[in-house]
Amino acid sequence: MGEISQLQSVYNRSTYKLTNHGVRNVQVLKEAFQHMNEDLESDMYGKGQIIEDFQEKMAALTGKEDAVFFPSGTMAQQIALRIWCDEKGVRKVAYHPLSHLEIHEEDGLKELHCIESVFLTDRNRVIDLSDVMKMEDGVAAVLLELPQREIGGQLPSFKTLKEISQFCRDKQIRLHLDGARLLEVLPYYQKSAAEVCALFDSIYLSLYKGIGGIAGAILAGDRDFVKQSKVWKRRYGGDLISLYPYIIPADYYFDRRSQKMEQYFKESQEAAERFNSCYGISTLPAVPVSNMFHVHFQQSRAQVEPILVEVEQRTGIGITNHLIETQDQCCYFEVHIGDQYSEIPKELVTKAFDQLHQSMEQHLKHP
Amino acid sequence: MGEISQLQSVYNRSTYKLTNHGVRNVQVLKEAFQHMNEDLESDMYGKGQIIEDFQEKMAALTGKEDAVFFPSGTMAQQIALRIWCDEKGVRKVAYHPLSHLEIHEEDGLKELHCIESVFLTDRNRVIDLSDVMKMEDGVAAVLLELPQREIGGQLPSFKTLKEISQFCRDKQIRLHLDGARLLEVLPYYQKSAAEVCALFDSIYLSLYKGIGGIAGAILAGDRDFVKQSKVWKRRYGGDLISLYPYIIPADYYFDRRSQKMEQYFKESQEAAERFNSCYGISTLPAVPVSNMFHVHFQQSRAQVEPILVEVEQRTGIGITNHLIETQDQCCYFEVHIGDQYSEIPKELVTKAFDQLHQSMEQHLKHP
Repeated sequence: MGEISQLQSVYNRSTYKLTNHGVRNVQVLKEAFQHMNEDLESDMYGKGQIIEDFQEKMAALTGKEDAVFFPSGTMAQQIALRIWCDEKGVRKVAYHPLSHLEIHEEDGLKELHCIESVFLTDRNRVIDLSDVMKMEDGVAAVLLELPQREIGGQLPSFKTLKEISQFCRDKQIRLHLDGARLLEVLPYYQKSAAEVCALFDSIYLSLYKGIGGIAGAILAGDRDFVKQSKVWKRRYGGDLISLYPYIIPADYYFDRRSQKMEQYFKESQEAAERFNSCYGISTLPAVPVSNMFHVHFQQSRAQVEPILVEVEQRTGIGITNHLIETQDQCCYFEVHIGDQYSEIPKELVTKAFDQLHQSMEQHLKHP
Repeated sequence: MGEISQLQSVYNRSTYKLTNHGVRNVQVLKEAFQHMNEDLESDMYGKGQIIEDFQEKMAALTGKEDAVFFPSGTMAQQIALRIWCDEKGVRKVAYHPLSHLEIHEEDGLKELHCIESVFLTDRNRVIDLSDVMKMEDGVAAVLLELPQREIGGQLPSFKTLKEISQFCRDKQIRLHLDGARLLEVLPYYQKSAAEVCALFDSIYLSLYKGIGGIAGAILAGDRDFVKQSKVWKRRYGGDLISLYPYIIPADYYFDRRSQKMEQYFKESQEAAERFNSCYGISTLPAVPVSNMFHVHFQQSRAQVEPILVEVEQRTGIGITNHLIETQDQCCYFEVHIGDQYSEIPKELVTKAFDQLHQSMEQHLKHP
């Protein structure tokens, strides 16, 4: 299991938590199954009421002809890109250099499909129309991640999205949406999921991030695309005899949280403002465009960690449980606003940020 | 959902079922979670107490250095074979022509890994030492399935297993066990799981067949093999944020059923004897070597189905819910003996087989 840091330990014991929906424990599953009819039969290898009903619901949400439930987004997205590559008879796709496919999947796309990837922009920017326009030839599909998680959850404007979509259509390049956090960006765009998805040929959507299910993903597109994706799902060993342990919680928490994205978005903007008003702290983006952002420090992890421990101990509010080091010896942490933010009494939120400001100033201004 | 056949419908309404553990419904999950501590934290991407404890338990069971939990056997086995191919620097493996990899995985091994497969014997036989000895050169790994499901669950002798193992070791060919039903063959061999597994370099074991979990598989082997398999698990999108919805039921039902394999085995022999004493019915194998066998008819599905409907209606005992057509226009069904067999009062079992014999004779001898 490994030892846990002091920050993790203090965070675990804190009375309130600033981020996320709650602890990922067995209760998350139990709650979702509590009122489920015990006689309800399992899905069987992708067939049956539980999986078919949910897939229809997700097809309707995304405005696509069909949708398929996958155990993971990793599997779903590699398959989407492979299908588009096969359609064009090439093995090349384009995405952001910090795409999930590039940094979290052990080169699955290359190792399993021999698909080469082209980076559309540099690490610190969001993809723009010009990036796509000057992309090299022979790309079967462009993948856009909304929001771009690894840079704090940034978004192109909806106008840019439309232009990229039009450009790709004109050039017969498929456009795939890494919509791990699709619902989370709708309040910023002021669009429905279907309106955003209409710009894309294929859609991946996660069921455990903003929605807070246990695991699982949806891949949506036209009928032929989904049909092909089911064959690949079987090839990957993703066509499990029973996926209901993920589908039922996905559906349960979708119904409870899909309407709360506006709330998370506003609270995320409020929280970012509070962080930005603290000495030596800035958020990326400065004004969040979804329920997520990054909190950056100019100091090293070793310098910042004791400050956060102090703040969390004094206020009982868990701000984060770990800090990530950057290449330039600074550090940051990621914030996803979920159910827990609004559960903290407002005066305690204020107290926590006052303490954070004070501790930062004390330790870093006059160390 | 599709329409269900009359046989399926009568079977569903029958009071008792001859085969399997029970309906695969939501209750299977609820029972396993009933007494679980709600505060128990989820595994996270392959780490954490729930997954690590279970993996250790399975490593101990199989007598291997390490084990890893996979969402499916399809994923686990392709990965095992890929690792052995990479080790040898070739892309060729050998198995039975009716291996799961060949007939149920949409050519995943070929499509994802460009691995060529060599068939060791013909469809109707179990693999023998001579098959392996005369196999073409350049094979990285041999896969043996115990028991060979698609031919009714047949087994080589333990002596043959040992000889194949020795031959492969001498030739530096890796031997992989498709042990989907590993526990189910131990009573026949009168060996421990570890004794059987000692003959193999890598082991796959299913957690929802004889054990009756919801889904999931174990892949076991030496430390380096397991380490590599975890990288591939990530590449496949099988390294889910939470696998506990499968692991907890796997562990729960393992503890309840792993000691009942001897019982299932004996009941399977008893049931086969009863089938074989019915007019026009024979089992494959004639004497089962595990908890499974096939029940064969010399007539077409259209002829046999009404007979089974009649028997199930008259006796209230569900014998099977569907018949599989063979290439020569006959039909069969598969039997897995599980918890439900012993729940039927003995006199009703006798009554059901008497009725089956009588109906078969009546409809087929003097039609």
